[in-house]
Amino acid sequence: MTRSPSPRLPTVTDVATAAGVSRQTVSNVLNAPDVVKPDTRGRVERAIADLGYRPHASARRLRTRKSSTIGIRLDPVTNGISGAVLDRFLHAVTEQADARGYRILLYTAAGPEDEIAQLRRLLDGADVDGFILTSTFFDDPRTEWLIAAGCEFVTFGRPWGLDDRGDPRHRWVDVDGRHGVASVTRDLLDRGATNVAFLGWPAESGAGNDRRRGWREALTERGRLGPDEIEALSLSVEDSVSLGADSVRALLASGVAVDAVVCASDTLALGASTVLGRGVPVVGYDDTPVAAALGLSSVQQPLEEVASAALSLLLDDSEPRQRLLRPRPVWR
Amino acid sequence: MTRSPSPRLPTVTDVATAAGVSRQTVSNVLNAPDVVKPDTRGRVERAIADLGYRPHASARRLRTRKSSTIGIRLDPVTNGISGAVLDRFLHAVTEQADARGYRILLYTAAGPEDEIAQLRRLLDGADVDGFILTSTFFDDPRTEWLIAAGCEFVTFGRPWGLDDRGDPRHRWVDVDGRHGVASVTRDLLDRGATNVAFLGWPAESGAGNDRRRGWREALTERGRLGPDEIEALSLSVEDSVSLGADSVRALLASGVAVDAVVCASDTLALGASTVLGRGVPVVGYDDTPVAAALGLSSVQQPLEEVASAALSLLLDDSEPRQRLLRPRPVWR
Repeated sequence: MTRSPSPRLPTVTDVATAAGVSRQTVSNVLNAPDVVKPDTRGRVERAIADLGYRPHASARRLRTRKSSTIGIRLDPVTNGISGAVLDRFLHAVTEQADARGYRILLYTAAGPEDEIAQLRRLLDGADVDGFILTSTFFDDPRTEWLIAAGCEFVTFGRPWGLDDRGDPRHRWVDVDGRHGVASVTRDLLDRGATNVAFLGWPAESGAGNDRRRGWREALTERGRLGPDEIEALSLSVEDSVSLGADSVRALLASGVAVDAVVCASDTLALGASTVLGRGVPVVGYDDTPVAAALGLSSVQQPLEEVASAALSLLLDDSEPRQRLLRPRPVWR
Repeated sequence: MTRSPSPRLPTVTDVATAAGVSRQTVSNVLNAPDVVKPDTRGRVERAIADLGYRPHASARRLRTRKSSTIGIRLDPVTNGISGAVLDRFLHAVTEQADARGYRILLYTAAGPEDEIAQLRRLLDGADVDGFILTSTFFDDPRTEWLIAAGCEFVTFGRPWGLDDRGDPRHRWVDVDGRHGVASVTRDLLDRGATNVAFLGWPAESGAGNDRRRGWREALTERGRLGPDEIEALSLSVEDSVSLGADSVRALLASGVAVDAVVCASDTLALGASTVLGRGVPVVGYDDTPVAAALGLSSVQQPLEEVASAALSLLLDDSEPRQRLLRPRPVWR
């Protein structure tokens, strides 16, 4: 099964380094050259020529449909509550791809570098026509590699780096977690809550930060709490039922009044609900089978729509090339 | 994508019909001819010759590894609690197949006949080397078709028809639900329970009947309840939390004492537990994330082992060709 690796193709980062500019500047030269000073543009264009960087030329169009197969990474077995979301997405994609005459090929990867090696192997073997990537993260090297390789792909998850969100070569669909969390927070405030806590994750993550931002915006615009009061209601723990419970217990013990808790996941919501009981509303995220079984409110990602948009972006080359869908609150 | 169907190959059933014997007899002629009377054997051998039935000859060995790809059906999105089991199995298979240099190709099917059409299409296109089928059922036409087509396959789920369980051409791995349920029922009896109810499904299903049988055997061997008393504790409802709860509520209302409830699924266990509260032990089946999150006891299928055995049977042609693995009780 081992094949010799292809020579590495030059990337946007290589061009930026060679020209002594940022990736954003390279992107601007490619997509909006008017906004770049002429001498900077000249440097970037020379670097592109010297390195042989090809932004579009090598793109193999999916329209050739060589294998009618789309590659998707499947992660190892998880026993967690939230793993159900990507599984449900996979079901939706497989079903809708089948209706279009495409099949799904699964691969696994131990990390981003290993995944790039897998992508290369699948492309070299002409096993797939394109990819649907999930779980994008800050400075994701996979998308850069795919763009440089001229490969067709779409991501479920926006590019969390700031500089290429509108890059026409990066098609993505995502769910607006910030809007979803802001919306349920506003609903709780409208129902009379004032001290709405947010229980999220400590690590910097695109999705995690985005959800917390939605909560903070809703509280701030309401204007009943000052910045320090809001900060006191912002909790951060790893995604675990017991840690979620501990965190809320500690908040209560510190004397802070809590009217409601909005969480970054159903796992954390379950933890919070065990401490708070029925009187205090708790809202999770992802509307997993666990939330449904327990009668927990949650924020539901429209996974059928995400699957449909991802396939449309990948196979139909549809416009616009980026789609931010709205989640739906599920009150129970 | 449409291809003309291959001419239908003769099956064991065709041979049995032509010879006027049972499928078991045909199987015996092929695998243990000594046990068949000479004139019956003669009739079967003539039918085999007349129909051109080929039990082994057309088998394409996986050893040729034409595509290094294994096909698995993925069902539509389910929001249920138990769907997690086949998803976890898929994760385990994909990961272990990858370690062996194989990839997983997903397909979907609207029913058994549609699935057979899909199997044929994938084989004709040389897209896959073999299949892992899940969710076997009584008189499953898929396995018969695959045997007749000489295709490599293994099933997660035994052949529930009685006559071909040991057929060497049908490799399968399954989990002994009867043993698992009998074992947890005995544990409950050992802890002092007498009236252990069983909450299962009404429809005849291999797995469902098997689990109920394990419960009945454990109660019968203990000898404290008569057949009528045991029957009064045997409940049947569709797989739903609310129907499970209703059924247990009705049992209690009828005046039957209940010390514990063993269930055919975590869904039913969740329903039972909402009625009974903490004092009465409830045991589910499948050890789903919902059972873990709620602290419900359950019976866990060893899915990593199932995946490993399935791949070993499919790729290594290992012996024995059937594996019945034991589930593990998870007490909480």
